This record gives sequence, C-alpha cells and structure tokens, in this order.
Amino acid sequence: MNFDYSEKTQALMAQLEAFMQEHVYPIEQDYIHAVETNANRWQTPAMMEELKAKARAAGLWNLFLPEEYKPYGAGLTNLEYAPLCEIMGRVPWSAEIFNCSAPDTGNMEVLAKYGNDAQQEQWLKPLLNGEIRSAFAMTEPAVASSDATNIETAIVREGDEYVINGRKWYTSGAMNENCKIMVVMGKTDPSAARHQQQSQILVPMNTPGVTVVRPMAAMGHYDEPVGHAEVLFENVRVPASNLLVGEGKGFEIAQGRLGPGRIHHCMRLIGVAQRALDEACVRVEKRVAFGQPLSKQQSVRESIAQMHCDIEQARLLTLKAADKMDKYGNKVARDIIAAIKIVAPKMACKVIDEAIQMHGAMGTSQDTTLAAAYAYARTVRLADGPDQVHMMQLGRNLIAETAAKMVK
Amino acid sequence: MNFDYSEKTQALMAQLEAFMQEHVYPIEQDYIHAVETNANRWQTPAMMEELKAKARAAGLWNLFLPEEYKPYGAGLTNLEYAPLCEIMGRVPWSAEIFNCSAPDTGNMEVLAKYGNDAQQEQWLKPLLNGEIRSAFAMTEPAVASSDATNIETAIVREGDEYVINGRKWYTSGAMNENCKIMVVMGKTDPSAARHQQQSQILVPMNTPGVTVVRPMAAMGHYDEPVGHAEVLFENVRVPASNLLVGEGKGFEIAQGRLGPGRIHHCMRLIGVAQRALDEACVRVEKRVAFGQPLSKQQSVRESIAQMHCDIEQARLLTLKAADKMDKYGNKVARDIIAAIKIVAPKMACKVIDEAIQMHGAMGTSQDTTLAAAYAYARTVRLADGPDQVHMMQLGRNLIAETAAKMVK
Amino acid sequence: MNFDYSEKTQALMAQLEAFMQEHVYPIEQDYIHAVETNANRWQTPAMMEELKAKARAAGLWNLFLPEEYKPYGAGLTNLEYAPLCEIMGRVPWSAEIFNCSAPDTGNMEVLAKYGNDAQQEQWLKPLLNGEIRSAFAMTEPAVASSDATNIETAIVREGDEYVINGRKWYTSGAMNENCKIMVVMGKTDPSAARHQQQSQILVPMNTPGVTVVRPMAAMGHYDEPVGHAEVLFENVRVPASNLLVGEGKGFEIAQGRLGPGRIHHCMRLIGVAQRALDEACVRVEKRVAFGQPLSKQQSVRESIAQMHCDIEQARLLTLKAADKMDKYGNKVARDIIAAIKIVAPKMACKVIDEAIQMHGAMGTSQDTTLAAAYAYARTVRLADGPDQVHMMQLGRNLIAETAAKMVK
Amino acid sequence: MNFDYSEKTQALMAQLEAFMQEHVYPIEQDYIHAVETNANRWQTPAMMEELKAKARAAGLWNLFLPEEYKPYGAGLTNLEYAPLCEIMGRVPWSAEIFNCSAPDTGNMEVLAKYGNDAQQEQWLKPLLNGEIRSAFAMTEPAVASSDATNIETAIVREGDEYVINGRKWYTSGAMNENCKIMVVMGKTDPSAARHQQQSQILVPMNTPGVTVVRPMAAMGHYDEPVGHAEVLFENVRVPASNLLVGEGKGFEIAQGRLGPGRIHHCMRLIGVAQRALDEACVRVEKRVAFGQPLSKQQSVRESIAQMHCDIEQARLLTLKAADKMDKYGNKVARDIIAAIKIVAPKMACKVIDEAIQMHGAMGTSQDTTLAAAYAYARTVRLADGPDQVHMMQLGRNLIAETAAKMVK
Repeated sequence: MNFDYSEKTQALMAQLEAFMQEHVYPIEQDYIHAVETNANRWQTPAMMEELKAKARAAGLWNLFLPEEYKPYGAGLTNLEYAPLCEIMGRVPWSAEIFNCSAPDTGNMEVLAKYGNDAQQEQWLKPLLNGEIRSAFAMTEPAVASSDATNIETAIVREGDEYVINGRKWYTSGAMNENCKIMVVMGKTDPSAARHQQQSQILVPMNTPGVTVVRPMAAMGHYDEPVGHAEVLFENVRVPASNLLVGEGKGFEIAQGRLGPGRIHHCMRLIGVAQRALDEACVRVEKRVAFGQPLSKQQSVRESIAQMHCDIEQARLLTLKAADKMDKYGNKVARDIIAAIKIVAPKMACKVIDEAIQMHGAMGTSQDTTLAAAYAYARTVRLADGPDQVHMMQLGRNLIAETAAKMVK
Repeated sequence: MNFDYSEKTQALMAQLEAFMQEHVYPIEQDYIHAVETNANRWQTPAMMEELKAKARAAGLWNLFLPEEYKPYGAGLTNLEYAPLCEIMGRVPWSAEIFNCSAPDTGNMEVLAKYGNDAQQEQWLKPLLNGEIRSAFAMTEPAVASSDATNIETAIVREGDEYVINGRKWYTSGAMNENCKIMVVMGKTDPSAARHQQQSQILVPMNTPGVTVVRPMAAMGHYDEPVGHAEVLFENVRVPASNLLVGEGKGFEIAQGRLGPGRIHHCMRLIGVAQRALDEACVRVEKRVAFGQPLSKQQSVRESIAQMHCDIEQARLLTLKAADKMDKYGNKVARDIIAAIKIVAPKMACKVIDEAIQMHGAMGTSQDTTLAAAYAYARTVRLADGPDQVHMMQLGRNLIAETAAKMVK
Repeated sequence: MNFDYSEKTQALMAQLEAFMQEHVYPIEQDYIHAVETNANRWQTPAMMEELKAKARAAGLWNLFLPEEYKPYGAGLTNLEYAPLCEIMGRVPWSAEIFNCSAPDTGNMEVLAKYGNDAQQEQWLKPLLNGEIRSAFAMTEPAVASSDATNIETAIVREGDEYVINGRKWYTSGAMNENCKIMVVMGKTDPSAARHQQQSQILVPMNTPGVTVVRPMAAMGHYDEPVGHAEVLFENVRVPASNLLVGEGKGFEIAQGRLGPGRIHHCMRLIGVAQRALDEACVRVEKRVAFGQPLSKQQSVRESIAQMHCDIEQARLLTLKAADKMDKYGNKVARDIIAAIKIVAPKMACKVIDEAIQMHGAMGTSQDTTLAAAYAYARTVRLADGPDQVHMMQLGRNLIAETAAKMVK
Repeated sequence: MNFDYSEKTQALMAQLEAFMQEHVYPIEQDYIHAVETNANRWQTPAMMEELKAKARAAGLWNLFLPEEYKPYGAGLTNLEYAPLCEIMGRVPWSAEIFNCSAPDTGNMEVLAKYGNDAQQEQWLKPLLNGEIRSAFAMTEPAVASSDATNIETAIVREGDEYVINGRKWYTSGAMNENCKIMVVMGKTDPSAARHQQQSQILVPMNTPGVTVVRPMAAMGHYDEPVGHAEVLFENVRVPASNLLVGEGKGFEIAQGRLGPGRIHHCMRLIGVAQRALDEACVRVEKRVAFGQPLSKQQSVRESIAQMHCDIEQARLLTLKAADKMDKYGNKVARDIIAAIKIVAPKMACKVIDEAIQMHGAMGTSQDTTLAAAYAYARTVRLADGPDQVHMMQLGRNLIAETAAKMVK
C-alpha cells in the first residue's frame, strides 16, 4: 500500500496546475461574464478556442482516454487521471479546455469501443479534435430512468432506417450550438429479455423530427452555454447503419459508460469541494465579525476540520475505486463505484453548503462559484441513478456476501 | 394549554384556503410562465392586479398588520396571522395578492409606528393600498452586517438635507419597476455609543445618485419580478425630514422590525415545507420504480414520516413564539424568536431537499416549485442574521440563565 | 391556541417541583449509592418507603391515572400529567415515589379498565397503594415482537386452568423482589384472525414453572433495583379466572396500554433531556480550558442553543399529542403518538450525547446521571416498537391521506 | 499509489485471522462468561495464559512494536500493523493475547525509547514477556486534562526521592490485579516554561500512599478485568531514579506516545465497526418482520450501504495516516492523526448504533458485543483529547496554511 501519487502523476498534476494558474484562474471571472452577456447564451465564448489550442499544444488533451485507446488519447489509467480530473473540477467549465468534458468523454469512449470505422471517421475524430460537441439522450421525463428497463423511447426498424419516437430530458450538452450528434438510448424490442430490449443509436442534431424543446434548469441554474435539453423525437429517421454494435446491445453499452462516467463525476466533485473549502479558509481569515476574524471562532475551526476530513476520505475512496477499476475492470469494481457515487456528491453538497454559510449573503450570490457548485453537486445525487438506487444495490450485495461468509 | 386554532382563526384559514383553491393554484403555472416570458423581467405580470382586487374585495388584505395599527389592517395577532402566512407560503409569490409581501410588510409597520404624518401620507398610504412597492436597504457587501454596528453607509447632515454614500446589496424588492421608496439604514454618528450611531432614512428610488447596479442571485435564482438589488448611493441628497424619528434611532427601529420579519419568514417557510411534503406524498404514490410505487418502500415512508415530524415541531415552536410575542412583546420573546430563526429555515432546507430527491431530475427542474423553494429556504439561513449569530445569542442567554438558576 | 399551562397544572408543577427540591435532589446521590452497595441489588433501598409516605401525604400520588378512574387516582388529563411526568423524568427513579413507575402504571390502568372485581381486589388495590410492584411480559427473544402477531408464548386452556409455555425477556420490573404479579401476553388461539389470537393473563411471580433466568442489560446498565428480566414459562398453570376479559382480547388490551405507555416515555425523556441540558449549562460555565470557560466558545453556545431548540420542539409535540389523546382518544391520536415516539427518544439521545461530550470523561462516568440517561433514551428507541415501525405506519398513513386529498 | 496490502501484510493478516478463527471466536462467549462470573472481577480469566502461549508460539507477539525497537518486537511499520490491529479490534479483549493491549503498548514504547537500562530490565522485560501489566496515569478529575498544562499532580524532589501528590482517574489498567507499574504524569516545576513543567515517573502499584479508590464506569461498562481506576497519590515516595529521562520531559514523552496511541484506537475501532456491520448483515438476513427478512427493506439496505461507506473511508484515512507516520514521523503527520481521531470514533459510534437498532432489544443486551462496543467507541471520542480539541487544532492549521497559499 502506498499513498503517494506516482512520479508520472505528480508531473502531470504539476503541469496541469501550472496551466490553470497561468491561463484559467486569471480569466475565470471574464469567462463567466462572457457567458452571462453572450448574445446567444448557448454559444461557447470565443476565448475557449484559444485556451483549447494552448492546452493541446501543452499536451494536456484528451487526458480521460485510457490506455486501451492509446492512439487517441493520453493513455492514462483511472488512477492517473483522477487527480487531474479533480484539478479541472476546481473550475468545472475548464474541462472543455482539455477536451475532457462530459458527456463528450463518455461518447468518445463509446465510439472508440463500439463504433465502426465509418462512425469513428464521421463523429469520433471531430470529437477527439474538439471540433464538435455531443450529447447523450438517456433520461426520460415520464419514467424512472434509473431503472433502464423503464425507458420508453422507441427505435423501430423500417427498411434501411430506424424510426425514433420519444421524449428525453436532461440531455446534457444538447443546447450548445456546437453540439452536432446525440447518442440516443431506446428500445428496439420491448418483448426481448429484460436487458436485451435496449439499443443505442447515433442521431445528428439536425435530423428532421428532432426538436430541442427547452433548456432544463438544475436547481435554478441553466449551465450555459452547455445546458440540459428537453428533446422531442417525432418520427426521426436515421440510416440503420447509425446503430451502435447491434440491436439489444444498448444496456451493455450503457453499463460500460456508466462506471467511468460516475467516477469522473466523483473526481470532479472532489475538486469542486476542495475549492469550496479553500475559498472558505480565505474567507474566514479575512472576514471580521464581533471583533475578530471568523477563523478565531471554535465553531468555524470545527467546521473547517470536518470539511477537510470529509473531502479527504471521499478522495481516498475514489482513488481506491479508480485503482480497482484499473486492475480488475468496471464490473468487479461495481460495488466501490456505487460507494463513491453515494459518498462524493453528498459530501460535496455538505462541504459547499458550509462554505456558503461562511461566506454569508455573498455565498449565495453570483460573485462566488459556490451556488453553481452546490447546484452541480446536488444534481449529481440524482444523475446516473439517485443515491437510493446505488444504496439499494450496494446494501443488497453486502448483506448477501457477508451473510454467506459469516454463517458458513 | 390548547392546541386548537381559535374559531376566528379557523374561519380566516378556511376563507384564505378557498381563495387559494379558486384563484391561485389554478393559475400558478401561468403566473410563473408570465414572469419567465415577460419582456421586462422586473415587471409584475398584469394578472396580479386582478388578483389583488379580488383579495381586497374578499377582505383578505393587509392581514399582517397587528391590532395596534387597526385602522390600517386586519388587526390580527401574530398567533392569528401565523397560519394565514403559512398558507400563503405554499405559493410564495401569492403574498403580494393579499398585500402581505416582504419587505413591504416591515416597511409598512415601520412607517405606521415611526412615520410622521407627512411620511405616512406620502408613502404608507399607497403601500397599504398596494399601489407601490418598497425596499429595505440594510445589508452591505463590505462588512458582516449581522453585526449592525459594522454598517458603513454614511448619512451626513448638510443644512436641510442628508447626504448618503454607501453600497448595499440584497436590497430585496428594489429591482421591481413598481418599487418607489427605500428605507435605508446607515450611520449618522460613528462616534456615538455603539447602538446610537445608526439612523434610518427614506430614499425615493428616483433620487439622483441612486444606482441600481445589478440584480443579485440567490442560489441561482433571481426571484423575478421582485429581485434583490445591489444599490449604490453616491452623494444622494434627501430632505432632512425624510429621517425616521430622529438621529441615532436606526438600531432601535431595526430591532423593532426584525422580530416580526423573522417570524414571518418562519411562518412562510413552514408553508413552503408543508407544500414540499404534500407534493412528495403525491409523487411517491404515483411514481413506479423497480416494480412498485415508491410509496411502498420503507425508506420512503421513513423519510416522509420524519419530514412531517420536523415540520410539525417547527410549526408548534413558531406558534408558541407568536403567542409569546403577542402576550409579552418582541423583547421578552427574543430567545424564542432566535430559536425559530435557527429551526425553521434549516428544517425547510432538509424537508425540501428530501422532496427534491423523491422527485428525481424533475425535482431540480423548473417544473416544480421545489428548487426555488430550496433557494428561498437556504437564503433565509443567512438573511436577518446567519444561524450562527442567533445560536450565539440564544446559547449565551441559556447558559447564563440556567447556570444562575441551578447553582443557587 | 394557548401555550400557557393551566392554573391547575401550574399549581401541581410548583408543588411537585418543591417536593423534588426538598426531598429528592438532596438525597439523589445517597439513593444511587444505596442501590450500588445494596447486599441484594434487586431490593429497593429502604429510604423509598419514607419518600412514598411523604409524597402520598402531600397528595402527589397516582398522578398518572386519568379522570375515568377518578376514585383511584388524581384524575388528571394527559395534558395535565405531562409536565409532572417531565419533572419526575429529571430523576428517573423518582417516579416510584409518586407511584407513577412503569410498568406499574400501565398494569394499573389495564386492571382498572379490564380487571374484574376479584382481580382488582387482589392486585389493583395493593398496586394503587404502592405495596407491591408488577411486570408486563410481552417481548420475546425469538421473534420480532414489534409485530404482535409474531408472539409465540402459548396460553392453553386445560380444564379450569391455563397452561403457559414460552420465553420472554426485557420484562421490566420482574427482577425486583417486591414484584408479585406479571401480566403475560401470549396466544390462546394461533388459528384465529390475526388480531384475535392473543390473550393477556395474570401470573403471580411465585407460580411454579416461572423462572427468572437472568437480568438483561440495557446498554451496559442493569437498572437495579428494578431490572429487566428474562423469564421462562414452563408448564405454568394458573386458574382460568386469571385471564383478562376473555380469550382473543390480548391485542386490544395491548393497544389500549401502548398509547399512554409511549407518551409517558416521551414526557419522561423530555425531563431527562432537559436535565442533561441544565447540567451542561452549569458545566460549561464552570469548566475552564485553554484559558477561558467552555461557555465562551462559539461551538458550545451553538450546541447549547440547538439542544434547547430540539427539546422545546419535542415538548410541544408531546403536549399536543397529549391534548389530542384527551380530546379525541388514543385511536384518533395514533399518528401523533407515532410522531412523538419517533421524535422524543432520538432527541433525548442527541441532547444527552452532547451533554456527555461537554462533561468530558466525567460524562461517561457514574458520577453524573448522563450515561444512565443515555442508556434509557437509547433503549426507548426500541421499546414499544423500534423507530422504524412507527415511521412505517406514520409514513404510510400520511402518504395515503395526502395523496387522496391532493389528487382530488 | 497502490491500494493493495503488501504481501508481507497479507501473510500476517491471514495468519492472524486463522488464529482468531481457531482460537478466539470459538471461545468468545466463554471468555466473557468467565469474566462475568469471576470471583474477583479484576482478575484475568485463566484461559488467557494459554491463549498467550499459543500466540507467542505462532509468532503473533508484540506486533505493535515498530522497526526501531526490532530486538523487542515484530518490527512492523504502522501501515503493516494497522490491519492486524483492526482484526484484533473485532474482539477487543483479544489484543492481550498478542501482547498488544493498551496502555501496555504505549508504556512499552515509552520504556523502550526513554527508559534507562535498569528501568528496562525491571519493567520493560516483564511487560514484553506479558508477565505483568501496567497503567498510565494522566487524566485528572479536577482539570481539563486535554490541555496538558492544566495537570496538577505534584512531583517534588526531596533528596534522593520524588514525592507525588495528586488525584488521577480513568487510569486504564490499574484495576487489574496483575498491574504492577504505573507511568505517572505530573509537574516537577510549575514555574517553568509551559511545556517544560511536566515530568513522567514510574510508580509501582504497591508503593505506600497509592490508593486505588474505585473503578470508573465508561457508559455503564466497567471493562472488567482491566478497568479504569481512580487513583489517589498521597505523599507517594519513589527513588529519584524512577524519573523518565529527566525533569521537564513529561510533555515531550506524552506527545511521543499520543500519536501511536491515537492511531491504534482508530485501527481498533475500525475493526469494532466492521464487526458490527458484519453482525448486522447476518441479523437482517435472518430476522423476519412483517412477512419478510429485514434485508429486503430498502431502508435497511440503505443503512448497510452507508455503514460500509463510512467504515471504508475511515479505514483508508487511517491507513494513509499510518503511511505518513512511517514516512515522515509523527510530528509531520500531526494533522492527519488529528483527522482520524476526529473521524474514526464518531464513525464507529454511528455504525454500531445502527447495528444495535437492527438487532432490536438484543442489540442493547449483553448477548452481543454491540453495547460494549458502543461504550468503547463513545469514550474514545473523549480519550486522548475530546473531538473538539483535535478539530480546533486541525481547523486552525488548515485555515492558516490554505489562507497563506491562496492569498499569495
């Protein structure tokens, strides 16, 4: 057991931190201001392209793509990527600079793993180059989508085409004007075995019948310029060749992307929470009330200490999950992935909430990143399955395994 | 001891509930939509005037004004008003229908109590008639305003005028285009005794030197069309007669309004929380996951039970506080007002958060009132003094009193 | 609505408090010492008889017995008794002084309500006179007894006798050498309808076949001299006339006693918690660490304030429950009884735990009443049904009622 | 970073677990019964000597002693010892089998590091051989001992002797009849600099003037046969050569032992908590209520999942602390030692409390180890400094470091 980051990781961390110090933190407020004052709120501010160019030149590009897709990415393990993802998490929109934004990351992995040559040529390459963005249309308003067997969107074969009908929402990324392609989850065969009913299919945004109905709010935030869309599919026709892998593979593909997707959320949230704690430390040292800096108050010290303990524990658990995924695969690591998905978002909510309280009214305002950070952390308690679903699965597995072991 | 509402109160509750059922709930989504699609986001939708007329005709008008200002209002005690305020709290913007919106309520009380005839004629009357709206400029970005002695805005006498310089924020109401008057807290004599330095003065919105800098967000929400403004005062000159009562009375006036202000927040939040619980009950009964309605799950039942217990306890404590204020005055009731200010907002945050979780992604969206409700409850943990200040005062007083009593 | 205690209640409270000040607090440590050093740990110290005589002389006797049994008791309502029960709860063993100890209180109510003349003559009279003590044998080690239909103890008619076989535990009171009679819950007809299988029967402690196996610990405490017994029934024969009311009435009788039993626990726990808070206030005022009394620390003040808020809220909810029971009966008050049973023990655990922490090592020792108080509060989270059962019922009822009301 | 235990550690874990399975678990109830029925409750049951002989023969002896004292012990690092200490923690009294009991472990380290040849010959050797036991007299009833400068016990030089006067309590181990030696902390020079006033001195139990006043309870448990004593020192005279190192070194020696002492508590508590979770899993799988095993209930699964997450996080933090202590020393690891001391006991309390709830009445009884486990975990929230002291120090350090780093 060894709790030090490897030399390779430390070097990458130093490089990424230096980039953030030089290029990101100084323009953080400018970027937010550019988004707020954009004529088109769903257009990414122009400065993003410059930042991307710098990051790519510095070799900080596609860091999320694991070894197996080496030609395409940095070839990092989950354990190596984790602290980098955390650093980007300190400024959530910065992930795009390094072409590490969700849901593009998951879509690129899916295309790299399951896409055929034509699909990769048409969609994966521009995604890897950061030329376009993408969306993943999974959640539906009408059903409890955490149970994938509930999905109702129909993908029906008609000749050389598939016809898609359904309504999705919280399709992250689909509001952005540079979003060109969606991966859509639906059912090709509702009468098949429970986990063979679903398929995934590529749907270009400009396909007739696709309507972006409206942006969805996440705790009052619309997360411009990326956004979360409600998308209506009315007799949307795409070539049959747009199907990923084959009919009935939708559940399997989803499982494959959810492991990394969840751990990326957790890594990012640890960065978000650490940032909140750091800002809180600065605040309580500077703010004076009732004759002394807040930092002299025992309750503030206790709170800061607890925030640190909570973050550090979630970080270690997330790193252990990454290590297990690297060594044994996502399936074997299922329970610890559930564990971090339970732990990290709740931890982040709690830590950010404390930081808000220490900031007073300013903590609720647009002048810090805390309110948006809270909204993000809060929604992750629901995204990719609400806490309760992960707890159900983890609890059930633990009981079964332990009872079997102890009773023998 | 008697836990039944009085007959008078029950009759008013029934009348108000009927009004809400007939006139408010049916157009709730329309109103929100009207706000969202308003050309001017700070303009109150036109339908408000119709609703106000109906409420006034029904005698549901200025319900908040206590007995002592009987000619002006309904003459209800705090205990009588509490359940009415709770009912309005179920649809927070509905308070304006009954001319019971903060901060107008506090401003009307202040004007009724401290205003001279001219001030009452010019400002109180149109406020009581619901013709204009008002704001209270207290909190400042630069200092911990929960300690009123920190306030920095200067109110300096020059001949027949006062000259005001300072910067305020979270001046609720000041964004609304119908807001005509501000009550401003500042210092007339920084060298006076600690609680005689402050004064309050009336500043019409259109006074030269007053700049509404920007709307402030509250956890991502801008609370249109009312809003919370950052307001800059640069050499703002008003007649000396605009001063309330006299120099050095600002702290006393503030104390007088904070008691009712705090309990109104708590009453309203109990309504907000009860609404969230009610919506959650409907949701879990209808939503099916993993083969059964959520309402069949033991964890959901436990959560619903706990939410109910938390609300009911906070309600009783708030009612007891109202009773104590009615019988013994705000000063004697100081500790129990602190207690409800500690209890109710935290309770509401917790209850609403659970309701959000039970609603899944929809709970975080604009399609329920939950996200806005959470933002409101969360900000009240800071408004009128953060939790920590109330806990400090209540804890200190309890220790002193108990130690004195026990040690004898 | 009126939050003041009635004059009658205030007078009784004053009388009881004076008695506690004069006769109980001064000898509290002596009594505990007498218990600890008793040759027979299950013998009540002799000083108890003197105290009882004084209390009876003062008219502070059988305070728990409601109006309907007026000839026997004080004829107080639940609402009138509540604050008295709370005052006794500050010194849990003191209830016996006023003949208000569980489980005698429940047994006396059952005998007064369901006992025939002979049963009342033989057992109720000496209980009302405080001459003997009693036990209630309900919980069984082998089954989840919170679901009364699980009870396995057999009560089988053979001629003029019933023959009892089974194993009970946590039969409170049965260790005490003055315990003469048990009320035993068992099944006379396992094939009857679900709630008609059970009966209750009187079993004198000295009946052949009754074995007190051992005292049961409650979180390390044996609660001498009262104790909680494991009791084995092996072919225990009692006259058929010992049956209460009739075969199949056991569940109904149990329901009748559980309402008052639960609210008494809650009233008492509020006294226990208030005592813990009072002691904590004294402690933090006197104890010096790092150069100042603990009471100067913001975290201590926050904690004290929160403890007060938690107690006061639970108190109000309990009083409201008492009021509802008085006005509408235990059945109608079912949900609010569940609510206080959920709230009060958890509140007491939390408050006492904080008080322990403020006392340092002493808080865990035998030198304060805190550790025993915690053990008591913790076990009530399981006694008369674990929290989860009450939450299940309350949650289920709330969802059904609310969903029905809202959807209409 | 590598989250797998080293091969050496895995081999030791397997060996220790096999020993527990073969020799400890099968006689666990017998041992507890032997303690309870012992004529002398402070005498260790005879079976302990056999177990010790077997453990020593198996090479599982003095595992706690680090590399630097290799001739004496197993030479394990903290990181290697941690999982072994956790395994022993599953049966807290089992540590003695492997000569790894507190406070002997700390005393042996102190003697190995600071003792001169004569002191080592007389006391360290028999301790290493498990022939005698020892105690550490630090905490005093009269003062907040978490602030070591408050210690009042006087150690005064008179000729060739030191004369000791003072009162200690919670002197763990001192009740046991095989306890022969105490390390006593006191003040040799109250006028010296703050951290040079204290000294530590060896006091044989049978020295005239030493009175073991009484056993102290820890949440109702007396922890026989080891116990926690109140010890009175009245003109206790020992040779001057009994002083450890020299006058004024007491604080430094204490600091040296507290780091390992704290992490050992945490390692052990993780074992205690894991055992509680394992027992809970078995319980909920077997126990049927309302028609199904408890394990089918969603709330039970959620609770089990959370317990697991909490344990695993505390374990990782503790292992990281051990790694840091090994690599950089206790002083550099100060903050992370504070962090685990904050985290682990609270985590254990919470986990054990949940396990108790799942066990129903049995969970509070003497028939499981849960109640004693809770008492142990709860007292560690106070032992070696209450949570608040560690939070104060950790919070203060974090704020200072972060504010310095961020503001630059």
